[in-house]
Amino acid sequence: MKATVFIKPGKVEVQNLDKPVIEKETDAIIRVVRACVCGSDLWWYRGISEHESGSAVGHEAIGVVETVGSAVDTIKPGDFVVVPFTHGCGNCAACLAGFDGDCLNRDSHSVGYQAEYLRYDNANWGLVKIPGQPSDYSEEMLNSLLTLSDVMATGYHAAATAEVKSGDTVVVMGDGAVGLCGVIAAKLRGATRIIAMSRHEDRQKLALEFGATDIVAERGDEAVAKVLELTDGGVDAVLECVGNEQSVETALQVGRPGAIVGRVGIPQKAEMNTNQLFRRNIGLRGGIAAVTTYDKATLLDAVLNGEINPGKVFTQSFALDDIQAAYAAMDERKAIKSLVVVADK
Amino acid sequence: MKATVFIKPGKVEVQNLDKPVIEKETDAIIRVVRACVCGSDLWWYRGISEHESGSAVGHEAIGVVETVGSAVDTIKPGDFVVVPFTHGCGNCAACLAGFDGDCLNRDSHSVGYQAEYLRYDNANWGLVKIPGQPSDYSEEMLNSLLTLSDVMATGYHAAATAEVKSGDTVVVMGDGAVGLCGVIAAKLRGATRIIAMSRHEDRQKLALEFGATDIVAERGDEAVAKVLELTDGGVDAVLECVGNEQSVETALQVGRPGAIVGRVGIPQKAEMNTNQLFRRNIGLRGGIAAVTTYDKATLLDAVLNGEINPGKVFTQSFALDDIQAAYAAMDERKAIKSLVVVADK
Repeated sequence: MKATVFIKPGKVEVQNLDKPVIEKETDAIIRVVRACVCGSDLWWYRGISEHESGSAVGHEAIGVVETVGSAVDTIKPGDFVVVPFTHGCGNCAACLAGFDGDCLNRDSHSVGYQAEYLRYDNANWGLVKIPGQPSDYSEEMLNSLLTLSDVMATGYHAAATAEVKSGDTVVVMGDGAVGLCGVIAAKLRGATRIIAMSRHEDRQKLALEFGATDIVAERGDEAVAKVLELTDGGVDAVLECVGNEQSVETALQVGRPGAIVGRVGIPQKAEMNTNQLFRRNIGLRGGIAAVTTYDKATLLDAVLNGEINPGKVFTQSFALDDIQAAYAAMDERKAIKSLVVVADK
Repeated sequence: MKATVFIKPGKVEVQNLDKPVIEKETDAIIRVVRACVCGSDLWWYRGISEHESGSAVGHEAIGVVETVGSAVDTIKPGDFVVVPFTHGCGNCAACLAGFDGDCLNRDSHSVGYQAEYLRYDNANWGLVKIPGQPSDYSEEMLNSLLTLSDVMATGYHAAATAEVKSGDTVVVMGDGAVGLCGVIAAKLRGATRIIAMSRHEDRQKLALEFGATDIVAERGDEAVAKVLELTDGGVDAVLECVGNEQSVETALQVGRPGAIVGRVGIPQKAEMNTNQLFRRNIGLRGGIAAVTTYDKATLLDAVLNGEINPGKVFTQSFALDDIQAAYAAMDERKAIKSLVVVADK
């Protein structure tokens, strides 16, 4: 089968690999219909983080179940599913608490989704069943369903851990696909004022379409001053969807006392002066999204009933054979997020 | 009037100072009935933090209002009140969000409560009216009312920011008066399993009386291992009531994914590796307690109806003239917390 393989920084290619098979009784094999490129893939694509040459890549997909292991009884061959990058078992302390991204029983990394087939463990609870078949949906709806494998759930995690509630004023740091999904999530949870930090016109436009009420293009101290001026003392919640040092520092300063910063940007800098949090009762939460939890509880319904349209983050589309171009478009900021059409719907 | 003055590390004394007067229209002058010594007073008493020699000290009291400024209309002379160490205005973004310990309109530090009289600003909203007069209450009840000026509210803040909810399993780090009040708060919020970290028999006993279900005497890695063994994956919430590096490190490791650490121990070390939080979705919240908010919403009623008895943290009592002995008893760990009887009830 065709699968995307990492060669070296700046280079991925489609190779012919063995089709995956059931290895454990909790596995499922999925025939991929749509996949995409994640902002986090750019870390190793750009050579910023280490990655093993020759490894299969990608961790976002929707597709149709082909076979299942003997312990899988909630999902059956032929089911159309969201394939989360997370692998929640549904039964451990983390999953039961609604943090399936940190499932204590997961035993495989999420890799190889930019391919014709993939193997998914903890299929019984982790996969999210979509009604009907891919052919029942428009291209736009398939795009939105695809975002439920990672980016939309990750944006939602920022809002959920920042504890955004009805009537809140929030700041969203980051205008990438995750930040834009954070805007959607903040609105979905009832925020009435959503300040998007963005300095790119195309992304500002999409942020406004998704529900942002204000755009702040400033950065650093100027951004903090602007938000405090706009809000009379700071916002109720902050979604940190970047992870670099400046963004995190800004995030910690724009909340009113007691505000929580929900982080989903992979932190660039580990060491932090946490006394600045204590002095103003600023909370810090976040981490890996609880994809299956959010999809099943909220997001799948919100996509299916048209309340949210996160698929608009895909501004360019590529065939699997053109995977290099899909990465390059994101790397060069020509695409907000690159869709990969793996098979006909 | 008699007032406690800091002389130098290890030495406080009662001096004759001018009685305070109304300085601002939002002030009240309070005749103090009971005061006490705080664990945080020991920082400068022990010379660990700087403190100006000759300054009046103490920040916990109950008493009777003597005079009020012209803008004070919710409190009148003769009212019996809890005098919080915080000074919430009730109207700013912090107070409205329930974080009056970080009031944006406070303009004086909380000092000079270990005295016959004190001046309190933001009296209109900040003070907490107690029904009746001091003479209507038993000594035990006065002790519990006194804890509402700081220690009980601070313990409650740890539980509130750790988001302890009904049915939770929690760990309380610290067996000082704040930690013991944290045990009370966790139980009040419905925690069903409360693991108290304590290695002192008298404090273990009080923790159990307050609602702790388990005692862990180990520290550091051994404490983490013990809690994980007791709880199958970690607790739902952690109350950090110490602030030293080892306690904070332990606190960050005993929660299940998604757990929140509510901190009220003044942090000894500012720099922290926050990636350990991100990797397990551990939240970090806390800071200065919202004393007036908690007292008015929950704690005053809970004390008055006998549901909680935090006054038991006072294990020794002193006259104001014996203030040096009151400090020494806490410094030498002979008292869990020292009560100071300033005037007859």
